[in-house]
Formats: sequence, structure tokens, C-alpha cells
Amino acid sequence: MINIAVLGYGTVGSGVVEVINTNHDSINKKAGEEINIKYVLDLRNFPGDPIQEKIVHDYEVIINDPDIQIVVEVMGGIEPAYTFVKRALESGKSVCTSNKELVAKHGLELLKIARDKDINFLFEASCGGGIPIIRPLNSSLTADEIDEITGILNGTTNYILSEMSTKGSEFEDVLKDAQEKGYAEQNPEADVEGYDACRKIAILSSLAFGRHVNYEDIYTEGITEITAADIKYARKLETSIKLLATSKKVGDGFYAMVSPVMINASNPLFSVNGVFNAIFVHGNVLGDAMFYGSGAGKLPTASAVVADVVDAAKHLHRNIMMNWSSKKLNLMDISQVEARFFVRIKGTKVQRIEEVNRRFGQVQTIELPDEPDEFAFITPAMTEADYHAKAEQMDGIITMIRARF
Amino acid sequence: MINIAVLGYGTVGSGVVEVINTNHDSINKKAGEEINIKYVLDLRNFPGDPIQEKIVHDYEVIINDPDIQIVVEVMGGIEPAYTFVKRALESGKSVCTSNKELVAKHGLELLKIARDKDINFLFEASCGGGIPIIRPLNSSLTADEIDEITGILNGTTNYILSEMSTKGSEFEDVLKDAQEKGYAEQNPEADVEGYDACRKIAILSSLAFGRHVNYEDIYTEGITEITAADIKYARKLETSIKLLATSKKVGDGFYAMVSPVMINASNPLFSVNGVFNAIFVHGNVLGDAMFYGSGAGKLPTASAVVADVVDAAKHLHRNIMMNWSSKKLNLMDISQVEARFFVRIKGTKVQRIEEVNRRFGQVQTIELPDEPDEFAFITPAMTEADYHAKAEQMDGIITMIRARF
Repeated sequence: MINIAVLGYGTVGSGVVEVINTNHDSINKKAGEEINIKYVLDLRNFPGDPIQEKIVHDYEVIINDPDIQIVVEVMGGIEPAYTFVKRALESGKSVCTSNKELVAKHGLELLKIARDKDINFLFEASCGGGIPIIRPLNSSLTADEIDEITGILNGTTNYILSEMSTKGSEFEDVLKDAQEKGYAEQNPEADVEGYDACRKIAILSSLAFGRHVNYEDIYTEGITEITAADIKYARKLETSIKLLATSKKVGDGFYAMVSPVMINASNPLFSVNGVFNAIFVHGNVLGDAMFYGSGAGKLPTASAVVADVVDAAKHLHRNIMMNWSSKKLNLMDISQVEARFFVRIKGTKVQRIEEVNRRFGQVQTIELPDEPDEFAFITPAMTEADYHAKAEQMDGIITMIRARF
Repeated sequence: MINIAVLGYGTVGSGVVEVINTNHDSINKKAGEEINIKYVLDLRNFPGDPIQEKIVHDYEVIINDPDIQIVVEVMGGIEPAYTFVKRALESGKSVCTSNKELVAKHGLELLKIARDKDINFLFEASCGGGIPIIRPLNSSLTADEIDEITGILNGTTNYILSEMSTKGSEFEDVLKDAQEKGYAEQNPEADVEGYDACRKIAILSSLAFGRHVNYEDIYTEGITEITAADIKYARKLETSIKLLATSKKVGDGFYAMVSPVMINASNPLFSVNGVFNAIFVHGNVLGDAMFYGSGAGKLPTASAVVADVVDAAKHLHRNIMMNWSSKKLNLMDISQVEARFFVRIKGTKVQRIEEVNRRFGQVQTIELPDEPDEFAFITPAMTEADYHAKAEQMDGIITMIRARF
């Protein structure tokens, strides 16, 4: 029997308990031993819930119990999660976590402790919820040098953008609706400003490229500026606007960024809608691959956490190698990154096309009957620096969205 | 240093050599040791190719060399692959193979030998080419009870159906074109009749459900009867026709089948086009997940084979558990499986709709201006047995395709 402790009986924590109870036979078979939840740490009590008899309020009970071999951290946030996880690893207990903030900020240090102790620090659920992506990166794509990871890594923003596209609504209205339905937090900043996706792409890039990517170095732009009119243009172009988190090798350098991007049907991420997430990976011999599934939600996230528990149980005193070294990956300044740019500008095409062509070269133009006082164009590929230098010289630019097609 | 032997220097074999040469540094790092190709077994010589110095024509050289720890079988077909692989495993050498015929027919026996010898028999490349699916099923989706796997598992047929859809061409014309381009074999039977997809779904189902699925028990229908007119109807319905290989839990039973199916945009497999493959998996706690990538091709397939070599190198004397037991999974007779049915029938809607409604209940009808002497309808959900009983009583049915939406 392997005894585990679950830190936090919130959404994910109660999901972990539910998954282990629901599938106990098959989970125990795959783990090779019975997985027993001995403690659940929470400040609250849950009278009437069968979990109540396992509830403890004091972490010392868990850390001092030599029977506990695996600690599941699903509290979220940096503290006290970081202290609890570090102490667990230092005392020889493996840790499985869904906490992307913790992994993005302290993953490197925590992985090193686990390696030194010959135990494991696993975090499949921290990126892409239930989608298996961390373990495939570690143990399946080992023949490849990965040169790109691009993901739709945040379900809330993908839901909002999908709804805006389907209903033609404005960002604020859809956000409010999403909050009422529980698809968005009351404080939605981490999602809508791209911070959540930024942490996740930092984790995935560190694993894929084998060097440490600091999430604070990643250029990050959210979706709060996207309007119903932007979406109307996108639809006319048979494209969709997605919040993409990308890291990519270009020549000898790497860049990483999170921003709204217009993509068309030739991109496998194009048809990833609603709360679904997907991660596109390009390997130098594999070519294109994509992993798709539920990026959030109680049971999908718990499914990934429990899969880590099974893996930790199968490797109790044997560290599973992860390709995340302490050597830092220096990211290129994004001013040198090339893209095409979708630009909305005041005035009519007749009035301004000459000026636009003079600055940006041959552009593709789009006009909407509903928006008679403006038009839009898509530039040829150019660097961000080039684009901004040209754009600064032009009056009346309403909005710019990167285009990848 | 870990010495390996590659059996067969055809497309995949030369790909394996190329991948190991191209990414040697990162592969050796992930394997924890240098992977050295000591022998390549082929009947032919390759004068001028650097591989020539490693070519041997006699398998005895390989089997009798105690330095060889991993054998890569990429010859295809049952014999002599089966004999070679069995002898390798019996003499304590791990085997990595891309050979779906071998795995579908003898996988159970070969896995048992590997387990008894504490070595590994790995076959990631046998299903879905470069797509990581076997390892995720084994080691990522361990918290779930999987209740459905549905895949587009054959690149040739998916290419043909995609081309028929884009160009409006007939099956024979696209097949001929695909053969000229090298996307289809000169003898295309295994692909177009669905036999290849059938073997792959048998392998995936055995792993996902943990019980042995005999590929010979799977109902299998190919794409040779699909016509340009069928595709025209599909497009009018905003659906596409895909060759789907499915295995699914229904109540306490399981069924498995390979057949063309009409699906719409709500299905994540809808936008998997051309030579790409994808595997949709539904878990009881994970929900929907999908794995997408290159289902065939020299380098993607070799990428999966070499990932197995890395895994075998990391687990030289430690068997990686696979959830494929000798207990047989008895499949339901497909007559009890429910679907909707798309049916083309001679005569006009005005002439025949009453009869159709009398037999099938309320149906959705579709008429094409190009096809004035027929129309089509989609039945409500009913069992295959029900459908066939009703269809037998009707004259002039041109074609039936299962519909899943």
C-alpha cells in the first residue's frame, strides 16, 4: 500500500479524491500497489463528507508521518505551497502538483531536490489540464529536437474568444457571462491578460528545449483589447483569433511570446474551440504533432494529477529524468521576430491605400460594410521592430493583431 | 555504449539510421548512454552508402553477438520478422518495432516473453506513425478507464478521401494519382480495404481496455465503394467522410469496427486532412482527448521507433508494464451497435418519402441538383440489425454510410 496526502480540498483536490475512489481498481493495478489517501490537508472541515475523517489542519502531521510517500499539492499559489512542497521533497516524499505558478517559479529548484533524493517532482496537470503533454515531451518525443511549441493553453480565454466569434459579442459581455457560468474567475486578470498561458509556455519550453526559460522574460499580451469588430474581420478572412503561447527556434536563437494571433484553417489549432486546449509541437524529424483535450475542469485536471501519482508510485525511489537543465535559455528580443500584421486603420481604402502601400509594401486589404469609416490590411512578413517603426509614422491605427498564415 | 542492430534498410530502416545520426547528441543525452548502430541486416548491399560497413546478410551474426542489447525490427510482414523478434527476445535483447501486422498477430506472446526476461518489446511506431499514442496510453492515461478510442489510422485512405473531397474526383482517379505520388502502394489493398486500420485499432484497444482484442474479430469495411456523389452529399451536409477505426464500450460490452463514417465539425477528427492521422480517446474522468500528427512517412515513423530505442535503453533490464492481458475481450456483434445511417436511394423525394418515413421514422432528407433521379436521407439512431432489416425491404438503395452526429 502506498499512502498519499492531498494538500487542499478545493476543486482539484476533491477531484483527485473522486478519481482515486471511482477508478480505484484500475489505478491500483496500474500503480502495482494500492493507493491509499491517508490525509487531506485543508483549513476547513467537511462534516458529512466521508473525507472528514482524513482531514488534518496541520501540515506537520503529514510531513512527520514516515508512511506518507507521495504528497499531492493542489492548493495553488506560491505560498504556502512552495514551503510545503520543498519540505516534502527534502524529507524524501515525491510530490505531484497541478500548480503552474509554483512550477514556473520554482520548478528548477524543486526538480533538483527530487533528483538529489532519487524521488520525483511531477506536474503533468500544470500545463494543459488533462492533456498528456509533459510526459510525452519527456519520454515520447525523445528522438527529436523540438523547434516549436505553440499552444492554446488557457480555457477561459479560448472560451471567451470562441463565444465572441459565434455570437458577435464584445469582450466585456462575454466575460461577464463566462463569470456567471463559472468559466472565468471573479478576478480574471491572470487568464485574460495572458499571465496563466505565459507560465505554462515557460514550463513547456524549459522541458522541450532542455534549458531554463524564465517566465518573466516572455513577452505577454492578453485578449482584453480584442473587439467584436476585430472578430468580424477575422471571420471575413476565414480566420480565427486565438490566444497563442509560442516558443520557437529561429536560426540559432529562441523567442517566446503570448499574444492574440489570427490563424486560418491550415493551422491544426484553428478548430480548437470553447474550453478545449491544444498544444502543437514541431520536431525536426517528427514534423507536426498536436495534443488536444480539456485544459481545465475538476476531473480532467485530477486525471492528470492522479496519472502522476501512479507514475510516482511506479518510480518510488527512482528519479524519472526530465530534460530541464539549470542552463538558462536566453530569449531573443521580440523586436527581431517576424510576423505578418493585421491592422485596422481609420479612413477609407480609397483615401489611404497609397500611403499604406508606400509604408508597408503590397498588402492584402479587407473592408467591412458595417465599418464604413475604416478598413484593414495585412502586411507582408516583417520584424516587429520594422512594423512598429512604420506604424508610428501612420495616423489612425485602431488595432494590430499578429497574423500567422 | 548501447549497441543496436537494425533489421531492414528500407524506408523506415534508413530513417532510423538518419534520425540517430542527425540527433545523436540529444538522443544520447536522453538515453543516458551513446546509442551505436552496430549492424544493419539487409539482403542487399549499399555500395557508396556509409551504412555498407555495418551491413550483414546473416541474422546469426546479430543474435549471437552478446554486445547487441536492442534489436530494431523494421522489415514489416510476419515472416521472417516474427522468428527474428522472438529469438531476439528469448536471448535477452529488447526489441523495438514499427510492424503492426506482427504486433496485432503476435504482440501478446512477444510481450509475455519480454516480461519474463525483464526486457522490453516496444511498438510505438506501429500505430499512428510518429504520433505518440502507445506510451501515453500506457503511462499517461493511467487514472482513467478508457471507454472509447476512435482513430483516423491510415494516411493513404485519409489522403484519398481528402483529395476526393477537395477535387470532387472519383476514388479510382485519386488512387492512381496517389500511387504516382508515392502516397499509396502499388498493391493498395491493405490500406483501402481497411485491413491496416483494423490491425492498428486492435493493438490500441488491447492496450486501452487491458484485454486482448483479436484483429480478426473486428468488422472491417474499406473506402473502395465511396463515390464522388457520396462526397457531394457530405459536403452539402457540411460533413466529411473519414475512414474511422473505433472501439467503444457500450453498457457492459465492447464493439470494434472499421468503416467510412460521416462526421461533422463538432467532432475533433473532422479537420484531420491529407496524410495526417489522429486518435481520439475518451476517458471516464479525462473526457475527450486527441493525439494528432504524421501517421506515416520515413522520418516521423523513424522518430517513434528511435523514441522506443531511447526508452529501451533507459529500461535495459526492467520491463515497462503494458496493460495488455491475455484475457480475451469478447466483442459484441455489430448488429447490436447503434448508429444513424446516411442512405442514397433511387427515385425522387416526392415519390418515395412516404415509404421512407414509414420504414425509418422521421428522417432528414438531402437532394442534390446534379442527381435528379435520387435523393438521400439520414435515419434516426437505430441498431445495425434494425437498419438492415428495414433496408432489405426497400428497392433502389444505392449506398449506405454510417453517420455519427
